[in-house]
Amino acid sequence: MYNFRNDYSQGAHPDVLKAVEACNMEGIIGYGQDDYCKKAADKIRTACQAPNARVEFLIGGTQTNVVTISAVLRPWEAVICAETAHINGHEAGAAEARGHKLIQVPVGADGKVRPEQIPPIMERHEDEHLTKPRFVYISQATENGTVYTKAELAALSDMCKKYGLFLFADGARLGVALTSPACDVTLADMARYCDAFYIGGTKNGAMMGEALVLVDEGVQKDFFRLKKQMFAVLAKGWLLGVQFDALFTGDLYWKLGRHANEMAQRLQKGIQDLGWELMVESPTNQVFPIVPNSMLKKLDGLCYYETWCPKDADHTIIRFVCNFATKVEDVDGLLAALK
Amino acid sequence: MYNFRNDYSQGAHPDVLKAVEACNMEGIIGYGQDDYCKKAADKIRTACQAPNARVEFLIGGTQTNVVTISAVLRPWEAVICAETAHINGHEAGAAEARGHKLIQVPVGADGKVRPEQIPPIMERHEDEHLTKPRFVYISQATENGTVYTKAELAALSDMCKKYGLFLFADGARLGVALTSPACDVTLADMARYCDAFYIGGTKNGAMMGEALVLVDEGVQKDFFRLKKQMFAVLAKGWLLGVQFDALFTGDLYWKLGRHANEMAQRLQKGIQDLGWELMVESPTNQVFPIVPNSMLKKLDGLCYYETWCPKDADHTIIRFVCNFATKVEDVDGLLAALK
Amino acid sequence: MYNFRNDYSQGAHPDVLKAVEACNMEGIIGYGQDDYCKKAADKIRTACQAPNARVEFLIGGTQTNVVTISAVLRPWEAVICAETAHINGHEAGAAEARGHKLIQVPVGADGKVRPEQIPPIMERHEDEHLTKPRFVYISQATENGTVYTKAELAALSDMCKKYGLFLFADGARLGVALTSPACDVTLADMARYCDAFYIGGTKNGAMMGEALVLVDEGVQKDFFRLKKQMFAVLAKGWLLGVQFDALFTGDLYWKLGRHANEMAQRLQKGIQDLGWELMVESPTNQVFPIVPNSMLKKLDGLCYYETWCPKDADHTIIRFVCNFATKVEDVDGLLAALK
Amino acid sequence: MYNFRNDYSQGAHPDVLKAVEACNMEGIIGYGQDDYCKKAADKIRTACQAPNARVEFLIGGTQTNVVTISAVLRPWEAVICAETAHINGHEAGAAEARGHKLIQVPVGADGKVRPEQIPPIMERHEDEHLTKPRFVYISQATENGTVYTKAELAALSDMCKKYGLFLFADGARLGVALTSPACDVTLADMARYCDAFYIGGTKNGAMMGEALVLVDEGVQKDFFRLKKQMFAVLAKGWLLGVQFDALFTGDLYWKLGRHANEMAQRLQKGIQDLGWELMVESPTNQVFPIVPNSMLKKLDGLCYYETWCPKDADHTIIRFVCNFATKVEDVDGLLAALK
Repeated sequence: MYNFRNDYSQGAHPDVLKAVEACNMEGIIGYGQDDYCKKAADKIRTACQAPNARVEFLIGGTQTNVVTISAVLRPWEAVICAETAHINGHEAGAAEARGHKLIQVPVGADGKVRPEQIPPIMERHEDEHLTKPRFVYISQATENGTVYTKAELAALSDMCKKYGLFLFADGARLGVALTSPACDVTLADMARYCDAFYIGGTKNGAMMGEALVLVDEGVQKDFFRLKKQMFAVLAKGWLLGVQFDALFTGDLYWKLGRHANEMAQRLQKGIQDLGWELMVESPTNQVFPIVPNSMLKKLDGLCYYETWCPKDADHTIIRFVCNFATKVEDVDGLLAALK
Repeated sequence: MYNFRNDYSQGAHPDVLKAVEACNMEGIIGYGQDDYCKKAADKIRTACQAPNARVEFLIGGTQTNVVTISAVLRPWEAVICAETAHINGHEAGAAEARGHKLIQVPVGADGKVRPEQIPPIMERHEDEHLTKPRFVYISQATENGTVYTKAELAALSDMCKKYGLFLFADGARLGVALTSPACDVTLADMARYCDAFYIGGTKNGAMMGEALVLVDEGVQKDFFRLKKQMFAVLAKGWLLGVQFDALFTGDLYWKLGRHANEMAQRLQKGIQDLGWELMVESPTNQVFPIVPNSMLKKLDGLCYYETWCPKDADHTIIRFVCNFATKVEDVDGLLAALK
Repeated sequence: MYNFRNDYSQGAHPDVLKAVEACNMEGIIGYGQDDYCKKAADKIRTACQAPNARVEFLIGGTQTNVVTISAVLRPWEAVICAETAHINGHEAGAAEARGHKLIQVPVGADGKVRPEQIPPIMERHEDEHLTKPRFVYISQATENGTVYTKAELAALSDMCKKYGLFLFADGARLGVALTSPACDVTLADMARYCDAFYIGGTKNGAMMGEALVLVDEGVQKDFFRLKKQMFAVLAKGWLLGVQFDALFTGDLYWKLGRHANEMAQRLQKGIQDLGWELMVESPTNQVFPIVPNSMLKKLDGLCYYETWCPKDADHTIIRFVCNFATKVEDVDGLLAALK
Repeated sequence: MYNFRNDYSQGAHPDVLKAVEACNMEGIIGYGQDDYCKKAADKIRTACQAPNARVEFLIGGTQTNVVTISAVLRPWEAVICAETAHINGHEAGAAEARGHKLIQVPVGADGKVRPEQIPPIMERHEDEHLTKPRFVYISQATENGTVYTKAELAALSDMCKKYGLFLFADGARLGVALTSPACDVTLADMARYCDAFYIGGTKNGAMMGEALVLVDEGVQKDFFRLKKQMFAVLAKGWLLGVQFDALFTGDLYWKLGRHANEMAQRLQKGIQDLGWELMVESPTNQVFPIVPNSMLKKLDGLCYYETWCPKDADHTIIRFVCNFATKVEDVDGLLAALK
């Protein structure tokens, strides 16, 4: 069975695992107060060209999203996000469970929030019987595998500044986004245009862990207490620092993203050559073929994938995902079998 | 510097780490739906003699405490706990942040909640202008290193049943509790007397992870959704299953607890031989000497430890902790140096 | 200036105010434990033909909605409602602030949730990474002035039962709904088809107050504690009982609703005779004309009304509301002036 | 039966009720945006000598306490209060339900928080694994009927300023506090020393309603949205403004407080003359006799009162309350009967 189910079937990249093993019995101070975390944070700050950013390591994506929302928003303030956003559709109401309303905007197949969608929302919410929008949540790459370009990010950032909105990017797949040929955005651009964003580890070579970059200085204060309250302080916090230190040694983090993209692009092209249509042409590590329902049985015996959503009565959109560990033989093997 | 700071200075026990490495690149289904989690859960259910229990793996202790509270309580219901309880004093208001009041009971140096403390609380809370107590939180071992005996646990359980209270034991240190010579409680007893409890991994040989045993069937329903909402579903959930599978292979989990106890008892005895007094005589892996303040400087140059609280104007209670990795040479070395 | 702004420009109906005055200095037990509340609850239970219902008096509509949601839902459960629902668009995130996600369904100009909209939501939410829908919120009359017929209510109730969903009707405008010629639903039908609903006082002759009818016995337990926690226990709780007792003396409550409807229908017909179009033909006390923007200035000098939303570049939907105190001279006066 | 049960057995003072009647059918804009609210707020601002304060009318005491806490605190911040504080013991966990921990300080029979209790709490909470204390809650008068003097208030305010703590006074009984001969505090002093406080209407002549004075300008922003979210915006908000306008016309508010005090002092003196002991000598409208349990039956047949708490095996502390409507004949009648 070929495995294209998701980004986290494998554990850590061997280099990352080796780094963990190397310090496993060292005896290190807890709660992320250690030197590995400091070193990893320094590397990330440098790579972001954001010397005043606070870099925090958290355990998973949902947690990182909601901790940031809790750090920024007051109880009457709300989040603007795509209706397809991960926080809206895949996090079991975690943001609402911390008290915050999500104001959903309709999006097309590319899953992107557009700057022009902001003003009508802000206008409607001048009515004080409604929540006050204060936070815009986007994903880079999006749930649908697409990327915001530098121009798109800059335009969104300008619009957010105009309305006093905090711009946050969920970077669970930042590794594939910033290494995609379709994307001209650098890590420094992310720090320039976003008030906060995270660099996803779980989906790009770490066992677990996300590096949150708090560019905005206003939300940095008391952040440890909030992390602690929201279960985001790992007792052996150095486990996260060590992994990000390894990922940001040399080019590793970006190499892994690039590999996942290459595998996915090879798969996507092969699938198009087969004459299948796509939900959207993805420039990153996810591929969304539209499959006749009659083929699903056969696919089930051939590989692991995820059902995305029904397309029409006879077709289903499915998702293939490549990651740092995907082998070219598997891509080619699946394509050959599909023929 | 000798390191007696806490239970989590080291990563995973080598056997546990090896198990993780072995399946690191295997390609496993996510979110804890994998066979390692199933296998580990089965082993734990068997060890608990609780075939109908649901065993869930979570990431850390604060999270496990608060997820359980959220699973059990309705918004107007409250937790009874010792004023020294971890959820009250060390979790940054995590329980309250999910909406629940903690009703604190005064405890002595042994840190234990007594059955006779329950009835007056229940009586006072018949007044419907107050919250309704519904959950009793204890720790086995306690924050102060002591253990509930089987008789104490049974008596508390009886009292809880009488008042319809859910009895939960925080087992962050269950490994040292159940292997302490002072403790006649078995894992099966825990499952018999508690409605839920957890088996701590983080402080006893795992990188991270706690195994929550939901004995009560009423709270098992929909538990995954709650875990997801509260960031307790690890994408690579098999990482937790693999570790607990290793810890419950042979006697490993208990061996590690036993070792930590032996080291701590050796240290405690040595300290008493030095003529120092103790806050409480601990039968587990924590030691609480009362130290003249004039000695603290010297200690600071000698070893890592934690300041517990002031005893009086001239003395401070400190804490030494041993764990699975503590070496006998370190215990003896510290004792020699203290002389 | 003619006043058609909303349903609550006037205080209490004179009969209601007289009842309050009559017992003002009587010296009555607090917190709604008094005989006036008991008597009013009995009358309502009888009118509902629901002898096992618990009737509770709360202060306002938003509060009644959210207290009921909190009584029914567990933290991982969600509410299904129209995207135009009052709890979604006009309550400043009050439901989310108590932790609950709102799953919005698109609705037409009549603002009604349809039974066939439920199954696809339930299917999608079988995915345990999402919240679990457990509560359907409708309004009778809707935000748009329309009413659910008995057949519609029965069909929705059937669908809810099929999926284990709790059906709740916001009855802020129940007085006008059940007295509308377009509505064949009785109070007993409300109790038959809904698991809970409320009888709005604020918008139909009371100073303030809503009578919540908890038909479902499962949510009745501990309700006082939840009310207290959510500020819904008025110290002088008898104030609410006295008002509902007066409203349910004779036909008063329904007479007031009928009057508001008659005034609004007269106004609506007059407006149609003027050749204006309507957003929706409302059978109750709200009227929604589509007005050329050029006329708005003139209207502003003539009467109080509310801007509903833009229709297109040149037209705006506005809202006129009649209530128990609206005078026929005012309706005719406005119509004359509009000519 | 003589009625000394509590402060809210009667409705509104006749002058207040008359004011409500006078404008009942006037047709007034909703949600507290009316001129009555503006006028009442102006009067209060003037009386407080606090021209930049924002004055908001809310419905009840628990609500006012918790809305203010929600306005001030971030999720990781906590409230310091007396263990006997109303928010701790009588509000069904309302503060915790909004996510905030209460740090309780032990108090004596006078129920007062002392400045010297603050520093050790602040020191202990420098540990970032704990919540951050940010809000001190006191009551003027206290639950036990005592009052903070100007010197006490100033000292507490100084200590709060030193630690960046927000000082809030629950003024449910401010009317009796500031008119007590034992109290040298003026309304202007309240505004000078507190960052916010409220002037209780419910217990001093209003049907319901509290006037919250937000002296601190930082918490004034967006306050309406928070009120709306927390059910504190009354649709017919003018009802609250009209009542406070009446209460602050002439000396009415203070006259009512003074009367309640005089009745209570007469009762307290009479009781002492009978040879009964008191829990505390109260200078306001509550009286706390210590009664032999053998007398309780007789009392039950004679008057309404509240059981406060057991004193010892043979005695119970009870509470008598006088209010604006208490008659001297009732006081003397009860005293005569007690002889």
